[in-house]
Amino acid sequence: MLNYFSSDFKLGILGGGQLGKMMLYETRKFDIQTNVLDPNAEAPCRIACNYFEQGDLMDYETVLNFGRKADVVTFEIEGVNVEALRKLEEEGIKTYPSAATLEKIQNKGIQKKFYLKNKISTAAFQLYKNKEELLKDIEQGKRKFPFVWKSTTGGYDGKGVAVIKSENDLNTIPDAECIAEEMIPFKNELAVIVARNPSGEVKTYPVVEMEFHPVANQVEYVICPARIDPEVAEKARKTAEKVSEAFKHVGLLAVEMFQTRDDEILVNEVAPRPHNSGHYSIEASYTNQFEQHIRAILDLPLGNTDSKVGGIMVNLVGDENHTGEVVYKNIEKIMQMDGVTPHIYGKKITRPFRKMGHVTIVNEQISEARKIAEEVKNSIKVIAKK
Amino acid sequence: MLNYFSSDFKLGILGGGQLGKMMLYETRKFDIQTNVLDPNAEAPCRIACNYFEQGDLMDYETVLNFGRKADVVTFEIEGVNVEALRKLEEEGIKTYPSAATLEKIQNKGIQKKFYLKNKISTAAFQLYKNKEELLKDIEQGKRKFPFVWKSTTGGYDGKGVAVIKSENDLNTIPDAECIAEEMIPFKNELAVIVARNPSGEVKTYPVVEMEFHPVANQVEYVICPARIDPEVAEKARKTAEKVSEAFKHVGLLAVEMFQTRDDEILVNEVAPRPHNSGHYSIEASYTNQFEQHIRAILDLPLGNTDSKVGGIMVNLVGDENHTGEVVYKNIEKIMQMDGVTPHIYGKKITRPFRKMGHVTIVNEQISEARKIAEEVKNSIKVIAKK
Repeated sequence: MLNYFSSDFKLGILGGGQLGKMMLYETRKFDIQTNVLDPNAEAPCRIACNYFEQGDLMDYETVLNFGRKADVVTFEIEGVNVEALRKLEEEGIKTYPSAATLEKIQNKGIQKKFYLKNKISTAAFQLYKNKEELLKDIEQGKRKFPFVWKSTTGGYDGKGVAVIKSENDLNTIPDAECIAEEMIPFKNELAVIVARNPSGEVKTYPVVEMEFHPVANQVEYVICPARIDPEVAEKARKTAEKVSEAFKHVGLLAVEMFQTRDDEILVNEVAPRPHNSGHYSIEASYTNQFEQHIRAILDLPLGNTDSKVGGIMVNLVGDENHTGEVVYKNIEKIMQMDGVTPHIYGKKITRPFRKMGHVTIVNEQISEARKIAEEVKNSIKVIAKK
Repeated sequence: MLNYFSSDFKLGILGGGQLGKMMLYETRKFDIQTNVLDPNAEAPCRIACNYFEQGDLMDYETVLNFGRKADVVTFEIEGVNVEALRKLEEEGIKTYPSAATLEKIQNKGIQKKFYLKNKISTAAFQLYKNKEELLKDIEQGKRKFPFVWKSTTGGYDGKGVAVIKSENDLNTIPDAECIAEEMIPFKNELAVIVARNPSGEVKTYPVVEMEFHPVANQVEYVICPARIDPEVAEKARKTAEKVSEAFKHVGLLAVEMFQTRDDEILVNEVAPRPHNSGHYSIEASYTNQFEQHIRAILDLPLGNTDSKVGGIMVNLVGDENHTGEVVYKNIEKIMQMDGVTPHIYGKKITRPFRKMGHVTIVNEQISEARKIAEEVKNSIKVIAKK
């Protein structure tokens, strides 16, 4: 085995945002040297890595040259140059997750076809080369409202996805390769994080549940464990493992799924990295997702994915009416509540709905955590300094 | 309240060792800006702080100028210039713990007298201005073997302390101001960490127990909760709170105590900072000691000090036969064990008994954690590269 700890070994991380920042807590804990590449000179990862480079993650030469300085390369964001990853692999630099996996995931059309080929249940869909083709199908009555429109590339945090209920909604979507997907009237949106190392060891985290705001239809709480039937949970875990196995994935794979009204599990989409739905693990799990990712990509033994206590995560997003230098109003109030930990990502400027941090609430009783989570949600405001 | 999060507020930390490094995980989590001063350019804190300065912690001008760049000053090591702290306080810069507290703690003679004055039980002692005075008392039969010799200043990690059993042992001690202390035939060595903020809010962590190697008489395991009678635990917690109250301490105060054969609690010594006996809290507690220290010195609400699970800490010290570039032999073996987390401090060179890191073992059952801790201890070796 390679000697990673307090050695000359270097891990290259593409992307220097909050996911990278939380990964760096773990590389620091293990004293593993890191290089980070990010386009933003003020990226959250700028400090706490051993070497920071400012550069374009989609630029072939930049990624290649950055990668060559490392022994193993990983990423914390999907938008990186895959060709450069492939070249690095050819040169013998391990890149985990692999270029082949990332390529499939970057394009939602390819991703969906991959599920079909591997007999992984997913919502029915049709691929369209451009907007015109989609409109033709609608005109000819082959595609009925409502449906879910997804751009095959570039989607992130709800961008590139739209529910199309009428002709009017069609005006809002750009001309791009896309898929039209059947609307799933789901009971629950679930997620499972699977960890897999190059030796093939696999561990899955418990199933988490996304609880939606009843009116705004936005995810309000990520709840672990999901308050669902154990058999459904088992089915979701097995499905997630099947997806990881199909990709021969190395690292973390966050698998988002729908629990249909008939308790079927349909895979929605995946992220090949630590994921928002796993943030609760920092406080609640025996091994948090960031440590697990490091263990996985370095072919170390995977850690225990069980929870010590119930965990709920609330995203801290910028108030819709505020833009400017950020202030976390009432943060001292939520810090008084039992088992509450705020995570502040370090972005100086708040904008409407910008992800500025998250708050974890842990408690032996998930019902108690849920109550406190609501108090947190009702107390803290991410606003601009006056 | 001051706005600490993603703001221009700056926390100055004197000392950049492993305690500071673990504190920085928390300042990063809250996005609180930090300045760190340490004599070693390669200090573990060098990265992950916002500004690092190399300099002598005992030098008045260095500490004063460093402190002036911060809004609040704290320390992670007792060996800092107290006069500079006092001057900073005069200039309106908050220093927590205070200069007055640190001054009392830096000198074991003053510390012991402070306990007497405040009616805090402690082992009987005698203060000697120098070695000659001590020898005179022995000659005249006023001081009998065995006793514990402690230098009043400069002791750390077992240095400056010796058990004197015979005339021969006297040769090993230097000429310095010292105390001679009654040997306490104790059942257990216990510790309690007390957190107190400037508003006077106080929270204590559960009592931990130091388990000694039956032959080598060295602390092998720090165990939380201590496997002692609840009434004794309650007494220890109350005693620790009394000490914190007497000091009007702000920040963390680690209180080390003896449980005598008669179940009396005697205070041994204190450390005004995060402490080795609280490392288990990173994995086991709702609020770890480093986050708690930050909360306390910034007058934020204190977090829950309860444990989620049982925790045991094993120090990782350099093998006695090895000096050179460090290798953590069998680290992958201990990472396979349930609930095991290694913390590597980042020192490149190992030396006999040098503190290189620690390992935490958590488990719902403390007896199970204790078994795994022994496997950890028997597996991992801190050796030099061949």
